[in-house]
Amino acid sequence: MTSDAFCPPTSDFPSSRFLHVLTTRGVVRQYTDAPIAGDVMDALVEGMLAAPNAGNAQAWAFVILDEPRVVRRLRGFAPGVIGAPAALVVACADHSRGPDDPREYEVRRLCVAMAVQNLLLTAHAHGLGACPSHSFRPDPVHYLLDLPPHVQPVLLVAIGHPAYERRPSVRRPKEEVISYRTQARNTTASPRT
Amino acid sequence: MTSDAFCPPTSDFPSSRFLHVLTTRGVVRQYTDAPIAGDVMDALVEGMLAAPNAGNAQAWAFVILDEPRVVRRLRGFAPGVIGAPAALVVACADHSRGPDDPREYEVRRLCVAMAVQNLLLTAHAHGLGACPSHSFRPDPVHYLLDLPPHVQPVLLVAIGHPAYERRPSVRRPKEEVISYRTQARNTTASPRT
Repeated sequence: MTSDAFCPPTSDFPSSRFLHVLTTRGVVRQYTDAPIAGDVMDALVEGMLAAPNAGNAQAWAFVILDEPRVVRRLRGFAPGVIGAPAALVVACADHSRGPDDPREYEVRRLCVAMAVQNLLLTAHAHGLGACPSHSFRPDPVHYLLDLPPHVQPVLLVAIGHPAYERRPSVRRPKEEVISYRTQARNTTASPRT
Repeated sequence: MTSDAFCPPTSDFPSSRFLHVLTTRGVVRQYTDAPIAGDVMDALVEGMLAAPNAGNAQAWAFVILDEPRVVRRLRGFAPGVIGAPAALVVACADHSRGPDDPREYEVRRLCVAMAVQNLLLTAHAHGLGACPSHSFRPDPVHYLLDLPPHVQPVLLVAIGHPAYERRPSVRRPKEEVISYRTQARNTTASPRT
């Protein structure tokens, strides 16, 4: 899949409307029985795979489960998945696609998280609700999905049609988490050593 | 900051246009001299802080540098920042806001990555270009910004007005990275043990 060339915002697609999708997204944990349509699932995949990744290595793999019985089985090992989603996406890092180095392992996991964020946003833009989870039991999930050793689950994402209208989450005041720096601490060390 | 209630897509904002922003985003490493306007920076912050986080802990902190001299100083310790961006965002995990547990540390870092993805997308939606980087030297960056010990940089993001039209990146075929499972491997172990 190739991405289109750089596309600046246009008058029919203001940046404020884009931001509104981001700020209205929130975790949804209860779903209706409705399945996810095939074309919507394709859009979710397309959004997910458009995430950045170091060196374009795409050191990731995603397992999509949308058959009710297998979703139920995985849920048994994922206490963070509370409701009965139409689909589960198991977002994994593929550690065969790069050096065997702890910092590289970390980068791959961070890229998987960025792909998951794209997935969450694309789901929300399509009227779906989703919930990422890190509290799954990694060894049983790895075993149940018969994953190769180098493919390691990072996040599980439950997705479905929301059963309720989500209440907004209260966030910390911006001033607590954002700081602006106009100076850096002095140092005599040369930056290039 | 509270998020608005759940907002499904409307006819004036089709999901296809939203997805288009995601699929046209790509890394931009060269920038013009133009600064980032204050209202645009506010939008970037708003998008970033709308990311999900485990238990709504918001165990993160973001340092924004947009004064040229301090941006230059940080760049000395960030080989992944190739051009001269208008701003650098140092996206950090705040490990004081939760248990002292390795898996919790990991979750916080993944949430920071998701916030960074929101930042990248919001930047692109506003006609800016950005580049996330993990290859910075963490100890000098920590020292230069005089961060407390529990605040640990995860990703550095360079942002500016693009100096060129980005070429699309070639991605692996979807079939290589996406698999669908309709069955799980059999096991006799009880899921709840």
